[in-house]
Order: sequence, then structure tokens, then C-alpha cells
Amino acid sequence: MDFDITETVNILGRTPGVLNELLKEAPEELIITNGGPDTWSPFDIIGHLIHGETTDWIPRTRMILNFGESRTFEPFDRFAQYEKSRDKTINELLEEFATLRRQSLDALKEMKVSTDQLSLRGTHPSLGSVTLRELLSTWVAHDLSHIAQAVRVMCRQYADDVGPWKEFLPILSR
Amino acid sequence: MDFDITETVNILGRTPGVLNELLKEAPEELIITNGGPDTWSPFDIIGHLIHGETTDWIPRTRMILNFGESRTFEPFDRFAQYEKSRDKTINELLEEFATLRRQSLDALKEMKVSTDQLSLRGTHPSLGSVTLRELLSTWVAHDLSHIAQAVRVMCRQYADDVGPWKEFLPILSR
Repeated sequence: MDFDITETVNILGRTPGVLNELLKEAPEELIITNGGPDTWSPFDIIGHLIHGETTDWIPRTRMILNFGESRTFEPFDRFAQYEKSRDKTINELLEEFATLRRQSLDALKEMKVSTDQLSLRGTHPSLGSVTLRELLSTWVAHDLSHIAQAVRVMCRQYADDVGPWKEFLPILSR
Repeated sequence: MDFDITETVNILGRTPGVLNELLKEAPEELIITNGGPDTWSPFDIIGHLIHGETTDWIPRTRMILNFGESRTFEPFDRFAQYEKSRDKTINELLEEFATLRRQSLDALKEMKVSTDQLSLRGTHPSLGSVTLRELLSTWVAHDLSHIAQAVRVMCRQYADDVGPWKEFLPILSR
């Protein structure tokens, strides 16, 4: 895709609605079941997205705009949600994510990033030099990747129930 | 999952909303791009789901309830949408799907399928003997599988844009 910041905001703005429709007041078992050891449930995924809003995307965008490559991004904690989401309901997490996402996109729009600025560089703690365009594209791909992951883990709970249809549903065996 | 028809209706009822949030008035390029030869775009997928509403799930449920294994289901045409969706917009398809899904679920509720009836059998043209429970579970898994597919094909359009982050996003290489 040719990168377009208006389009980026468009797609990023959809994620809370998609996840609400998918998960709000959905059957508990579908929400809290993961796909096996070291995999995430839809509940875990929303917690992970929340953590990204507060520590990753906008803070890193600011760091690129303000400091370029001279400061390294804070490493992202991929397991923070286990502690932070505890004692919350899925509906609380969904609302929290929607609020944070709205704030993130307001902040992004406020920055009025120009096409030239998209080529500015920052320093990722393990990937090294990255551009703002790559960071913002990754934000979109990361959203979509976790929506797909949540849907997949829900789908797999039907792996046995579908009987012989399993062979027509490759998602159940991947 | 222990099969529960109320839960089945709950999940099936979510799909139009999920797809609306994901696709309604989304950037054209994201909607019509597929993932390469013999793959489907989100636009193709909605057409496929529409065809399922009119020819697959409810007609096959009725056939099991009315004729058991004595009549074989009509084979499902996996390519019907190419012809049928032509000249329609994504918004028209989304609305059509939402209406048909509402009608399908009304019809399903109307049938008041009992737990005993879930074990009734029908005949699939290639899979042979299947139960009503398997058919209804497959309906749910099929929905989720195509939501994941649509999201994945959208995500992959960012494969190059994310730069070095690609290694953290396995969805882009699968």
C-alpha cells in the first residue's frame, strides 16, 4: 500500500468497534480460552492492545519526532497484560481500549505529521533504525494481526464440533 | 465447546456487525485486493457469506429436519459470488448479508431445535453422514474462519510497509 496517514487513522479507528462486536458480552468460555500453552485468549489480547496504546505507538511516534535516532525506544513488555488485566471484565477492557485508542488518534492527528516527517528515523531496541512510516504501518498491521488471532482462537474451540467438515476449514489445523 | 444453540445464535448474530465495523466505507484498495491468485478479497468473502445464507446453512438444516439422510444436500458453489456480487458495492453487500443473516437466525429460532434433534443426520455430497450439531458448529467456525481470512488479507497489504518489524508479525509470512 502507498502509505497514507488519513487511511491509517481510518483503519486504526475501526479496531475498537470490531472487537466490541466480536467480544462484548460474548460467552465467557470463548473469551477466556486460549489456544494452548504460551498462546493468548481474546481477553489477553485486549490487555495487550491496551498496553500498546499507553507505552508503544504514540510514545514512540513522539520520540521519533522529538529525538530522532538519538534515543532508543523503551522495550515493549509483551506480558504486561497478565498483571494489568487481572480483576477486570472483558467489557471494562474493551471500554478502556476504545477510550485509549480515541486519545491516541486525537494525539496523532494533533501532531499533523507531514509526508517528509514519515521518513524520520528512530531507534528500536532490537531492530535498530526504523522510520516513522514503518512504525505507523506496524501499528495497523499489529491491530489486524491481533484481531485475526482473537478470531482464530475462538474458531478453534469448534475444531471437534464440526466433525468431518474439519477438512474444509484449514484454520482449525494451522 | 459443549454445543449450545443459544450460544450459536449469539456468535452468528455478531458477524454482520464485525464485518461492518471492519469494512464499511473502508479504503477501496483494502477491500478489493486479494492475497494472490486463487485467494479472496474481503469483497469476495462477503459475497461468499451471502451465498451461504441463501443456499447452505438454513436449507441444509431444514433438509436434515425434514428428510434426514434420505436426501443429499445440494453441493455448495464456492465461486458463485464472482457472478452475483458483480456491480454491487461493499456497503450493499454488507447490508444484504446483515438482512439475510437476521432472517436465517429468525428461521433457526423458529425451528426450536431440541437437544435430541441435534443428533439427527443428513447426507453431505462429499463428506457423507453428518449431524445437525456438526452443521451448526460448522456455520459458526465458517463465519470465524472467513472473518480471520478477511483481516489477514488486509493485514498482508502492509507486509512491505512495516520494514524490519515484519519478523515480529508472523501473519505477514504465513
